[in-house]
Amino acid sequence: MKTKVRQLFLNKEEYASSEVRICGWVRTNRAQAQFGFLNVNDGSYLESVQVVYDNNLANFEEISKFRVGSAVEVVGTVVLTPQMKQLLEIRAGQIVLLGDSPENYPIQPKRHTMEFLRDVAHLRPRTNLFEAVFRIRSVAAMAIHTYFQDRGYVYVHTPLITCADCEGSDQMFKITTLDFNHLPYTEDKKVDFSKDLFGKQAFITGSGQLQGETFAMAFGDIYTFGPTFRTENSNTKIHANEFWMIEPEMAFCDIDELMDIEEEMLKFVLRYVLDRCPKEIAFCDRFVKPGLQKKLEDLLQATFGRITHKEAIELLKKAPVRWEFAPDENGDIAKEHEKYLTEYFHGPVFIKDWPKEIKAYYMKLNADNKTVAAVDLIVPEAGELMGGSQREENLDVLLERMKELHVDARGIDWYLDTRRYGGCVHSGFGMGFERLIMYLTGVENIRDVIPFPRTPKNCEY
Amino acid sequence: MKTKVRQLFLNKEEYASSEVRICGWVRTNRAQAQFGFLNVNDGSYLESVQVVYDNNLANFEEISKFRVGSAVEVVGTVVLTPQMKQLLEIRAGQIVLLGDSPENYPIQPKRHTMEFLRDVAHLRPRTNLFEAVFRIRSVAAMAIHTYFQDRGYVYVHTPLITCADCEGSDQMFKITTLDFNHLPYTEDKKVDFSKDLFGKQAFITGSGQLQGETFAMAFGDIYTFGPTFRTENSNTKIHANEFWMIEPEMAFCDIDELMDIEEEMLKFVLRYVLDRCPKEIAFCDRFVKPGLQKKLEDLLQATFGRITHKEAIELLKKAPVRWEFAPDENGDIAKEHEKYLTEYFHGPVFIKDWPKEIKAYYMKLNADNKTVAAVDLIVPEAGELMGGSQREENLDVLLERMKELHVDARGIDWYLDTRRYGGCVHSGFGMGFERLIMYLTGVENIRDVIPFPRTPKNCEY
Repeated sequence: MKTKVRQLFLNKEEYASSEVRICGWVRTNRAQAQFGFLNVNDGSYLESVQVVYDNNLANFEEISKFRVGSAVEVVGTVVLTPQMKQLLEIRAGQIVLLGDSPENYPIQPKRHTMEFLRDVAHLRPRTNLFEAVFRIRSVAAMAIHTYFQDRGYVYVHTPLITCADCEGSDQMFKITTLDFNHLPYTEDKKVDFSKDLFGKQAFITGSGQLQGETFAMAFGDIYTFGPTFRTENSNTKIHANEFWMIEPEMAFCDIDELMDIEEEMLKFVLRYVLDRCPKEIAFCDRFVKPGLQKKLEDLLQATFGRITHKEAIELLKKAPVRWEFAPDENGDIAKEHEKYLTEYFHGPVFIKDWPKEIKAYYMKLNADNKTVAAVDLIVPEAGELMGGSQREENLDVLLERMKELHVDARGIDWYLDTRRYGGCVHSGFGMGFERLIMYLTGVENIRDVIPFPRTPKNCEY
Repeated sequence: MKTKVRQLFLNKEEYASSEVRICGWVRTNRAQAQFGFLNVNDGSYLESVQVVYDNNLANFEEISKFRVGSAVEVVGTVVLTPQMKQLLEIRAGQIVLLGDSPENYPIQPKRHTMEFLRDVAHLRPRTNLFEAVFRIRSVAAMAIHTYFQDRGYVYVHTPLITCADCEGSDQMFKITTLDFNHLPYTEDKKVDFSKDLFGKQAFITGSGQLQGETFAMAFGDIYTFGPTFRTENSNTKIHANEFWMIEPEMAFCDIDELMDIEEEMLKFVLRYVLDRCPKEIAFCDRFVKPGLQKKLEDLLQATFGRITHKEAIELLKKAPVRWEFAPDENGDIAKEHEKYLTEYFHGPVFIKDWPKEIKAYYMKLNADNKTVAAVDLIVPEAGELMGGSQREENLDVLLERMKELHVDARGIDWYLDTRRYGGCVHSGFGMGFERLIMYLTGVENIRDVIPFPRTPKNCEY
């Protein structure tokens, strides 16, 4: 039986003076003439455990030369060292080399640039920073599942492959099983997709919302959590071509209840991660974004602001600021505006009732006939974190809006059935998971919160 | 505030005599002259709640005509009816029609064929069977996350888009952003993928194992849980082109510990689902597969058999059975053999140490130089549920095996780093999530455990 370093640290008293077996990787090795110190990390805990070895060990000479990155097995006695920084150490009775690591091992105990670490994405989780980020990512995913499952939501795996070319196939990857160098053609010289696996052209999708809505009309409350794809050819810090998204959808839920759920969920996830990853958050606070921890704690206490788009524009116009982009009743809200608004409200702000011209066809048309019941949640520094809406449940209005926005109704007639058969007020939102992780860690580049990021011209591993 | 039907039934005593508000869909409406009964299902609970209404309600006439599938809001008083089958009912004070449903609503209260329901995949979760199946699917997903997270595993989102053409690109969908009808070509008349988004040909993958291994070498224990794709053009009851898979990977873990984990995890998931979905399992036991519940309970008590492939073949050869396929030391184990073995062992059986010729390159070569440390778990009726192996951690042996099996080392040099830098004994397995759900529900066609299945010539919704 091996013991995890996490268990050792979290149950120190229990392990005091007992013998344990640890397997992990050498982070540092400081050898002196009579004794030495190995720092061993097993990935279960951000902190490494200090292993003290001395020349009573038969292979003392060998151990003295163990290199950074080597895999080792240590059997020894746990000694509490409350007066020291590391709180406990292991006095080694036996140390075995399981796997060597060469002199030129890329992850040396020094600061590496983020660019360098991106080039060794398969090795970077062996650094403290990425150990912290990817553990937070894992725990945050569990937080989301826990929030929804505890409240009876049904987790739905909506399909990624789709032929419903409704949200604009320009944004979707095409997929095929055809041989690119021997494509079949129809008589009018188009590629003949009837010969393809699905008998027609297929894509991988950017959203499971429409399918999610059909399940919400059966289960009441559902959520999706899965990968999503965009073909956007933009090299920015916040765009990736593959990312994960959460899309909850609630029947019998209007836009106000929607905001309640978004606020409660975000606070739940923050609390969950702060409770379970204190070392990881503290690390990010210290080395990634000073003030991070306070920012997250503050958000837990904040009551999120709630204003309409119109009110937001009025506030921005009155503000004593020279805007790069003039606030516009009919337009979007720029990054600089978001920043001002979150500062004005000392925290996150919901902006609702957006001009219908700049929002999607499925959003509920308000009584003013000018705005739709869409709502964006903007948070300090990260900007838009969630986007949602009450859905248009009236079939006639929905069809009219689809016509206005040139959305072809034929491909999604099944979706329209949600309005034909027991339709009801319902709402949903989408949250980009990476956006959340960037917010939770303070990491500013999306490439550094995805294990193996996919961006234009970049699809390694 | 609305109350969920699940809450009502699970906390009957608490709600007795109090007023509640319920939103849901009409499953049946039995109207008589003076009073009537609506069965309302809100998707939170397999059982519908019976709503009693009478002609004291102003809209009694209207309510009497509410059709199946309509969305309604009911305000009324909870009355316990312990002597009745339904245990409680709601005496309606007010019933409002939220969304109508036409006479020809497809989901009528009668038995529909599975084929018909597949054709209305967006409506079938409104039936008892699919409500049960998809809730079990959701709860089983949570069971898996809970098992691994409680034990400190890190959930890793391995990429779906890949250019690493290592497991045979024949099995992978190609993806592109190029315009099929205006493809760019190189001088030698091949499609010019340097013009594509990633600058080379890209695929969507069938496994995250290799990337998962790199993370196991940092975190110790990791798991993936995400969608997976196969281009297989086969129309069987157990194949789909898109399905979900779980791939855990553990450092410092050999094949025996691997089997321990697989057994423990499967029992954990079964227990979790049996505890949380008793009605759903009972429903499947009654209407899908008689004996299901006992089969699952039995598995919880069973100690899984553990034999080598060689021992399995010997057993099969000695068996008093006329095999369709002769048991073969060097070959695979057929369905009929699996069936015999699970019956022989009265439960699940691990079969390990397979002939290397029929297994993958990354599996640990055993000392006999003939077999690899691969292990399949076969379970009664469902056959192979998990497949795993100890991995070949010796770089030279691994390279030799890759050469034998014509696997190109260049594309996955990063993967080989796991053997160069602190390599160690490690193991992992894969479990098809749909296979598990079929096992848990007794449903025999994979199309009926996936919300919107993708199979050859079938990519609707």
